[in-house]
Amino acid sequence: MIGERHKTALAEILGADGVVQDCASLAAYENGARYDRGSAALVLRPRGTAEVSACVAYCVREHIELIPQSGNTGLVSGSTPDTSGAQVVLSLDRMTPIFDLDIDNRSIHVDAGTRLSDINGRLEPGGLFFPIDLSADPRVGGMLATNTGGSRFLKYGDVRSNTLGLKVVLADEAGTVVDLLSGLRKNNTGVDWKQLFIGTSGAFGIVTECVLNLERLPRQVSTAYLVPRTGTAVMPLLRAMEERLGSYLSAFEGMSGNAITATLAHVPSLRNPFQNGDVPNYVILAEVSRSWLPRDDEQPLDAVLETVLAEVWGAEDAPLANAFVGPAREMWALRHALSEGVKHAGRLVAFDLSFRRADVLAFCDWMKLELPSHFPDVAIFDFGHIGDGGVHFNLVVDEARAGPVDIAFERRLRDWVYSIAVDRFGGSFSAEHGVGRKNQAYYDLYTQKKHKDLAAGLKQLTSPGRLGSVCFG
Amino acid sequence: MIGERHKTALAEILGADGVVQDCASLAAYENGARYDRGSAALVLRPRGTAEVSACVAYCVREHIELIPQSGNTGLVSGSTPDTSGAQVVLSLDRMTPIFDLDIDNRSIHVDAGTRLSDINGRLEPGGLFFPIDLSADPRVGGMLATNTGGSRFLKYGDVRSNTLGLKVVLADEAGTVVDLLSGLRKNNTGVDWKQLFIGTSGAFGIVTECVLNLERLPRQVSTAYLVPRTGTAVMPLLRAMEERLGSYLSAFEGMSGNAITATLAHVPSLRNPFQNGDVPNYVILAEVSRSWLPRDDEQPLDAVLETVLAEVWGAEDAPLANAFVGPAREMWALRHALSEGVKHAGRLVAFDLSFRRADVLAFCDWMKLELPSHFPDVAIFDFGHIGDGGVHFNLVVDEARAGPVDIAFERRLRDWVYSIAVDRFGGSFSAEHGVGRKNQAYYDLYTQKKHKDLAAGLKQLTSPGRLGSVCFG
Repeated sequence: MIGERHKTALAEILGADGVVQDCASLAAYENGARYDRGSAALVLRPRGTAEVSACVAYCVREHIELIPQSGNTGLVSGSTPDTSGAQVVLSLDRMTPIFDLDIDNRSIHVDAGTRLSDINGRLEPGGLFFPIDLSADPRVGGMLATNTGGSRFLKYGDVRSNTLGLKVVLADEAGTVVDLLSGLRKNNTGVDWKQLFIGTSGAFGIVTECVLNLERLPRQVSTAYLVPRTGTAVMPLLRAMEERLGSYLSAFEGMSGNAITATLAHVPSLRNPFQNGDVPNYVILAEVSRSWLPRDDEQPLDAVLETVLAEVWGAEDAPLANAFVGPAREMWALRHALSEGVKHAGRLVAFDLSFRRADVLAFCDWMKLELPSHFPDVAIFDFGHIGDGGVHFNLVVDEARAGPVDIAFERRLRDWVYSIAVDRFGGSFSAEHGVGRKNQAYYDLYTQKKHKDLAAGLKQLTSPGRLGSVCFG
Repeated sequence: MIGERHKTALAEILGADGVVQDCASLAAYENGARYDRGSAALVLRPRGTAEVSACVAYCVREHIELIPQSGNTGLVSGSTPDTSGAQVVLSLDRMTPIFDLDIDNRSIHVDAGTRLSDINGRLEPGGLFFPIDLSADPRVGGMLATNTGGSRFLKYGDVRSNTLGLKVVLADEAGTVVDLLSGLRKNNTGVDWKQLFIGTSGAFGIVTECVLNLERLPRQVSTAYLVPRTGTAVMPLLRAMEERLGSYLSAFEGMSGNAITATLAHVPSLRNPFQNGDVPNYVILAEVSRSWLPRDDEQPLDAVLETVLAEVWGAEDAPLANAFVGPAREMWALRHALSEGVKHAGRLVAFDLSFRRADVLAFCDWMKLELPSHFPDVAIFDFGHIGDGGVHFNLVVDEARAGPVDIAFERRLRDWVYSIAVDRFGGSFSAEHGVGRKNQAYYDLYTQKKHKDLAAGLKQLTSPGRLGSVCFG
């Protein structure tokens, strides 16, 4: 689908080993982390910003469509080619050499192809980390493109609020490089251009390097499972914990009984932590943490958490039915296994929604009442980040009863869930996974015309070339 | 300078009391917080988004230049009219009725004319606050337009990272209202448009309402003055404090001996807190805080701070020469008086700079060596936010020796200081005050052509009308 002339020209820019064209090697770049299957004309593997710029300039001039790909761990078909066979993947997987730590500034300058685990592995001895906690291990360019949140958003914020600088290649005929790498924490001298390239799936430019804020690594961690008295007790419980624990509180994650049960059944290494094995309807994983080493004269963190839980439990109208402090590793293991676990419960149709915080449970409760009459053979296996309003709203279809899930059924189900989430509850149809090809139809449906017009104008202004899997205009 | 026809039309939109035209009443809107003196054709005082939209639409269609004004506490001539007498001020001072607290979401929806002190005064009984700590008391629209940082940026971040939503009126012929008020903490469904309107001085639209993130109010606070052994000991000291205090550390402010001495001399209510009254060359005000009420079984915060300081002091190559814990109110009173204090030391030429954190002191040290040979009768009275790299670099001219400061002298001095700050140290010429008319020349000088082109395009796309005191294109 792409002529020899282009292959030769691109190999001149990148060297022969920078251009992948044999079918066996292409596969890893064509297939997404979940379901997604596409077909690439070619994969380009530049080794630095200058090579990205040269590739982009060539492709824009030759009207070749580029799909930037980072760790390819996303779930919305944002980083893989479509099935046309005409798109060229630009992979960041060789963009890793820069690793420039500024200890005094608590920041690091890295290439966009660096893996999250590499950053944090190399920083650990110095007691620092990039504080985005994910179940996956993406490369940082993709984290920027989707503005990932993760399990500790409540304490540290998202990728956006931890980004101090970027270098970006625009998809214009020159492959213009925009240097926004200053690394300053404060700078109000005009438009903060880096914001346009965060969370926009690479449509306005390819991020090639970045400067990230680092935080002190937690040195003391304590976790508890909390069982709220009812669904409506979850927000009073969160308020009570925030009031008493303030900046200690680093996670407040919700797990439905369905999600827990499915995960315990399918991941044999997990122990059922609940009394008599009875899984409650809903469980909160609360984490408190401190970044300093334990001090002799200081109450241990487990004791702090126990004191606070006793206080909350003892209050009038206590929102707690049960609570127990336990080993952090084991408690998180269950939480991090949920995503895999629910996949085994049946055919999964997954949603990454967000709401104002109180509406997460309100939405889930509404769905529990209404879903059965609309989609009788679909069950809810939700879990998520109550502390920031995000919920991985997973629906599992009983295919034995409903028949196999076809595209029309999935589309009907998605349309209905999104309409409730967005129109009725004022929520977002993509909390932290971005748009991608998968959510394009919902972007088109739920985005106001004025916003689309602005996006189309911005696209012309920055990267008029064909770049990325999403059309925001 | 503005015809009766326009006055009549605008009075029809706003009512007679919404249009100010008598000289006595105009003065408050024409003069800035420091030095700035302008002349307005008219002041418009809308009472809500719909009225702002109608005014803006009229003015754009009639080619009338609008200057949005919020609390008018800024220091860069961003919110006042120029001296032409042709500009119309659009004041937010009657935009205050909305005050809609969402306790569960820890957020508040307010009108852009609401004062910071009003927000925090009304929130205090509930134990919440908008965590931007300033010496001034601006209205929130201006805080958004300049993206203010303040003294507790280190712990809570800037206005940008605490903004969940905006409503904006664009300067086009329709006065288009863009609603970005969702209040979601996570939403990655396209361009995060609100970022364009934060820190850009109202050039791309007038923010009329916003949703702000709230934090738990500190319930325990402890402060200390730290005297670093040398200038180069400041960063090791900050690192040692961050390592041992983590999220407790809520401020790490630097104060030069010059600034302290001038302030003690001119503010009689302040007590000299130093042994024998000997003011050190440089003093850090460190604050630790916790948002929960004291618990019986918990070590008091003063004791925590003392333990940590003893540890830091006892270390090999200790960066500390002296340190003492003292009453927070008194310690902050000196810090917050510095801005006023240095004004009494002579003719002030003030700079609001920022650097990577280690470069604040490196820059100040360089200046101490080099300034005397370039500007012999100018002394340095710096103070600032070491924890986030910001420095209020104040120069005081001895007019008795140098003669009165004229425009040419101030321009020469500014040009030289900015060239060192930006070109040599990679710093910013405006950390948290924005651009304004005052910094327009430095924006023009230090902004890359590509960035100006992008800004000009963005201006056409959003607010093609004449809006605001700054030209970013």
